[in-house]
Amino acid sequence: MTRPLALHPDRLFPADPATRGIARALYAEIADLPIVSPHGHVDPNWFATDERWTDATTLLLAPDHYLYRMLYSQGIDLDALAIPSRAGTPATDPRAAWRLFAEHYHLFRGTPSRLWLDHVFAEVFGLDVALEGATADHYYDAIGAALATDAFSPRALFDRFRIDFLATTEGAHDDLAAHAAIRASGWQGRVVTTYRPDGVVDVEHEQFAGAMRRFAELTGEDVYGWHGYLAAHRKRRAAFRAAGATATDHGHPTAQTANLSTAECEALFARITGGSWTAADAELFRAQMLTEMAKLSVEDGMVMQIHPGSFRNHNAGLFASHGRDKGADIPTRTDYVHALKPMLDVVGTSRDLSVILFTLDETSYARELAPLAGHYPCLKLGPAWWFHDSPEGMRRFREATTETAGFANTVGFNDDTRAFLSIPARHDVARRVDCGFLARLVAEHRIEDWEAAELARELTDGLVRRAYRL
Amino acid sequence: MTRPLALHPDRLFPADPATRGIARALYAEIADLPIVSPHGHVDPNWFATDERWTDATTLLLAPDHYLYRMLYSQGIDLDALAIPSRAGTPATDPRAAWRLFAEHYHLFRGTPSRLWLDHVFAEVFGLDVALEGATADHYYDAIGAALATDAFSPRALFDRFRIDFLATTEGAHDDLAAHAAIRASGWQGRVVTTYRPDGVVDVEHEQFAGAMRRFAELTGEDVYGWHGYLAAHRKRRAAFRAAGATATDHGHPTAQTANLSTAECEALFARITGGSWTAADAELFRAQMLTEMAKLSVEDGMVMQIHPGSFRNHNAGLFASHGRDKGADIPTRTDYVHALKPMLDVVGTSRDLSVILFTLDETSYARELAPLAGHYPCLKLGPAWWFHDSPEGMRRFREATTETAGFANTVGFNDDTRAFLSIPARHDVARRVDCGFLARLVAEHRIEDWEAAELARELTDGLVRRAYRL
Amino acid sequence: MTRPLALHPDRLFPADPATRGIARALYAEIADLPIVSPHGHVDPNWFATDERWTDATTLLLAPDHYLYRMLYSQGIDLDALAIPSRAGTPATDPRAAWRLFAEHYHLFRGTPSRLWLDHVFAEVFGLDVALEGATADHYYDAIGAALATDAFSPRALFDRFRIDFLATTEGAHDDLAAHAAIRASGWQGRVVTTYRPDGVVDVEHEQFAGAMRRFAELTGEDVYGWHGYLAAHRKRRAAFRAAGATATDHGHPTAQTANLSTAECEALFARITGGSWTAADAELFRAQMLTEMAKLSVEDGMVMQIHPGSFRNHNAGLFASHGRDKGADIPTRTDYVHALKPMLDVVGTSRDLSVILFTLDETSYARELAPLAGHYPCLKLGPAWWFHDSPEGMRRFREATTETAGFANTVGFNDDTRAFLSIPARHDVARRVDCGFLARLVAEHRIEDWEAAELARELTDGLVRRAYRL
Repeated sequence: MTRPLALHPDRLFPADPATRGIARALYAEIADLPIVSPHGHVDPNWFATDERWTDATTLLLAPDHYLYRMLYSQGIDLDALAIPSRAGTPATDPRAAWRLFAEHYHLFRGTPSRLWLDHVFAEVFGLDVALEGATADHYYDAIGAALATDAFSPRALFDRFRIDFLATTEGAHDDLAAHAAIRASGWQGRVVTTYRPDGVVDVEHEQFAGAMRRFAELTGEDVYGWHGYLAAHRKRRAAFRAAGATATDHGHPTAQTANLSTAECEALFARITGGSWTAADAELFRAQMLTEMAKLSVEDGMVMQIHPGSFRNHNAGLFASHGRDKGADIPTRTDYVHALKPMLDVVGTSRDLSVILFTLDETSYARELAPLAGHYPCLKLGPAWWFHDSPEGMRRFREATTETAGFANTVGFNDDTRAFLSIPARHDVARRVDCGFLARLVAEHRIEDWEAAELARELTDGLVRRAYRL
Repeated sequence: MTRPLALHPDRLFPADPATRGIARALYAEIADLPIVSPHGHVDPNWFATDERWTDATTLLLAPDHYLYRMLYSQGIDLDALAIPSRAGTPATDPRAAWRLFAEHYHLFRGTPSRLWLDHVFAEVFGLDVALEGATADHYYDAIGAALATDAFSPRALFDRFRIDFLATTEGAHDDLAAHAAIRASGWQGRVVTTYRPDGVVDVEHEQFAGAMRRFAELTGEDVYGWHGYLAAHRKRRAAFRAAGATATDHGHPTAQTANLSTAECEALFARITGGSWTAADAELFRAQMLTEMAKLSVEDGMVMQIHPGSFRNHNAGLFASHGRDKGADIPTRTDYVHALKPMLDVVGTSRDLSVILFTLDETSYARELAPLAGHYPCLKLGPAWWFHDSPEGMRRFREATTETAGFANTVGFNDDTRAFLSIPARHDVARRVDCGFLARLVAEHRIEDWEAAELARELTDGLVRRAYRL
Repeated sequence: MTRPLALHPDRLFPADPATRGIARALYAEIADLPIVSPHGHVDPNWFATDERWTDATTLLLAPDHYLYRMLYSQGIDLDALAIPSRAGTPATDPRAAWRLFAEHYHLFRGTPSRLWLDHVFAEVFGLDVALEGATADHYYDAIGAALATDAFSPRALFDRFRIDFLATTEGAHDDLAAHAAIRASGWQGRVVTTYRPDGVVDVEHEQFAGAMRRFAELTGEDVYGWHGYLAAHRKRRAAFRAAGATATDHGHPTAQTANLSTAECEALFARITGGSWTAADAELFRAQMLTEMAKLSVEDGMVMQIHPGSFRNHNAGLFASHGRDKGADIPTRTDYVHALKPMLDVVGTSRDLSVILFTLDETSYARELAPLAGHYPCLKLGPAWWFHDSPEGMRRFREATTETAGFANTVGFNDDTRAFLSIPARHDVARRVDCGFLARLVAEHRIEDWEAAELARELTDGLVRRAYRL
């Protein structure tokens, strides 16, 4: 006996009937607004080539570390899930991998992955039975059949999802060929890039040397000298802006910034490029580069996003066998108040600069981030991120930040995903949770209903467009 | 078309009808209790002279960094808001500043400032339309006209607000002239001072040298020698007690305490007064002085308040142009368990000592402060403070502390404000939030309704009077 | 006039009627499941001898630091409560101590102790009036009379409570005589031990030298040499397993682990046993021993519990007069991400190892523990612990961990108590809070009702048995 799959129209709204009624009314006004996705990691080649995806496992399971980290945590072998390792993609039958996933789908009860996937299953593929072992093949077949049709090509889904803007993320050493191909194709979907220079900033990253070589090739600058290196950043930032980018992104282990003299920068950079650096040098260089990037943003108007605080590749054994980005990144305690001060001492009072701060350390919401963003003209708060991009996580974000920073110092939602099919689901969750929060403020007579309606639209659309300068 | 302004009688109560009904009943019993305000920063000269205030901008906007920090964060110039800088008060038309504020009043949606101001507008001034650009002049005129009348003099409002006790805060080097004038005037309002010696304790404060000179003049002691310095504190504490003070207050960057020998104290103090101190010395001296103040409190019975954890004047550019207390103070992570131990090793088991702990780091509520206050006889928890003096902040405080510390180790509400007109609003928010919390405990059958009624009265009145020894 | 005592059947369920209805239905299905108690501190001698308890004070008040720490915090003398000190048990009349407690029972409003005690009073003793000064003697007499009957012997209550499994905790240097006596008695109650080697691991503990002597005697190994010391652990672990143990437990000041070479271990251990250690050595040795214990657990299959983060005996004065475990342990900020990495580098990818992590620092739930447990196959999350074993604490635990770790990486409830009579009360609170949380997920359409029913049973029974390998 299979179980029905049906998305309840009131899902994620507070249970109290009066509050739910308010949430429902707020949501009705914004549910159909186009999607603006200013930060994410979708592969732009999908839209460049518009090639069909092949199967449920390759599309939905293998690239999604939210999913296989949970399965791995319960003792399931990654090879059996067809997850690529350093040895390549295992010779696992994708259907068998899908069955294994389906048999363990119950593990996701109470997680956002469950919400997102059920939305994809029901809304994108029209499935009406719940995923479990008994329905695994039905799912695999139905999804495979759908993906073979024109209606499920990347561009067709982009239109169907009514995506108004989609930012991807590329390294400073990326040639942006996919984005060039999108524009050359004549397709009108607005897919743009974001400048993420971590590969040429983080000397502790194993790809640093290769990234620097490409950085040199693409710019023709002497990237191994401090001034040539900065000039190369300027050139690449201009190239990214030409490809539609309005923002940069910086994924650092900490939020540390620095404010060194030019002579100190030159000496530090000589150690970095000369290979004689220490871990402290590596951190100091990342810190200084945040300030350099902020100064360049004052010049060129690119919005700066800082995503700090992840301990990457925590599982040494898994890193050895499978490499990075395999669900083994763990958040750490993150300081902002002391860490950002050197950068803010340089650019903090600028009204031309816009820096969006993210965190994996929720303790900083009320203590540090809301007070900072509620004061500095150049600072805004990014939405609940990664592990906290979830109903409870979003609720905690609003409860902890609104009273000090208000809504206007936040920037709406980021889906921040490489799982393209889940984008409508993720935005829908965020809209519902925001409406639920606003509904509570109305029900408790803290704001008026018409104010909540204005705010719901702002959180979905206005704040996003203004914060990312779209 | 203007919008109506009306305070809903059920505001801030939980939306669930049964819980709301309980909250309403609890609140009805305490709503009209007199205000006891044991900690705040109202200017005592207002009551000494009883001079009229002049206009809305000068009274409500210019002194309130909660308000202009939000406007500043959105790129609005402080000069345009008539905020004084190091260059003096800008020549901005106060009416123009008020208009600018009114046009941006929507920024405060979801913040406590909005709740407090709407209460002031509706209850104190009888305004019945909402503040926005279109009503800015109406507000400015109506408030100005009211302030010109006898009914809006400081003393008249003190009586109208039914304030039973109001503590202000003065430095150790203050001559308490305003308080003397109040007493000499024959007016019966109970406005007393609080001993805040930070100016002569924090050598990193730019006013330290001047404060020490006044400290010497006022006491006739050799305040540049360790024993004379302590004797001067004893004298000033006695003078403050004579002016009605029952408490001291200590606003330190951290909660660090120390327990040095007399010889170590003498050597440290010699470095402090000799100008040869390091940042570590400055911190150690503040730490030692908390212990010294605790020992003096054991002697003289003054209640000790510790307000740690603010990174003052974080915005270097703004500090250069506008000086301190301009909304640029940012909370930091704060340790109590290790920090307080040296002091507690000396005075921790005293039953004569009463130390009230505050925090800007909510993570310490359940982890450190409730366990400490739920154990040490000398420790109590102050209410949710500053950025956390808000409906969500107060709710988190009760939820995080009650199960370990109970209610009896807390001290009721502090308005902690210099915004005199908002005092009834702030106490009303606190009473409503407390009643909402108690109502949930009743609705979930965790306490009985008659217990909640007792507790509501305790939180509003009994605990405050006992904790502050009124 | 006395007040009635009656446990409300809906206690602790959310107030919203629809959510409450769901919670009630979920609870009805699991309320009567047997109790599985895999971690606690009940005295096994009670079951070995089955001797009667004598009176309310000796049984309920004197051993319960949750109770007397609150009374102490309000200035009540421990001697007056008949709490043993280093000088022995004070000559206080137990009835007088009980009266003092009863007069202050109102202090526990809003605390879990109140919930647990009322459950004990009503359900175990059948009392129907509330405890207060006026009913103190009635309580004392009724409890004393009941305890004198066969129906209130330890074994009779064990059966009446329907306890299916009860783990106690003994040191590595304990001879397990009580457990041997239980088995020799022929009584069928399943009371087993847990291996807690802290006494021979923590050289800063005042009993280390004595514990090491007993450790040597019991094992016949050269415990003062590194290899003999490890061999002794192996022997004792085997003896504990023979006495039914399935788990070990480690109560360290921090979660720090280490991964030293054998030569480094030998040198470190020589300093430890030679008495020439520093505080850093003591910490490093505890850290290394967590890794050693993990390696032994891979060998022998014992589940490993880590309980870090308590600053023991914080109150120096009380420690001097009364010794340890007197309610003066205070949680501290605790890092897991960096601290556990050395151990996880060695054993992290093992599927034979099971490590259950606990915390007193709730900030680590969403930031560190859920991401770690939601990834590593060997890691699971223990329930809300100690100060957080409370309705709000449990709710925060579920809200902060579920979205990242799911339910399957948690282990059900631990009562973790020495208060045997409160065990049913504590499990009942946990079941109710879990059902309330699940009910909210159902009411918000995040999971289906039949899923919640499965999960409620898992949290109460299945997860516990599997996690502890019962």
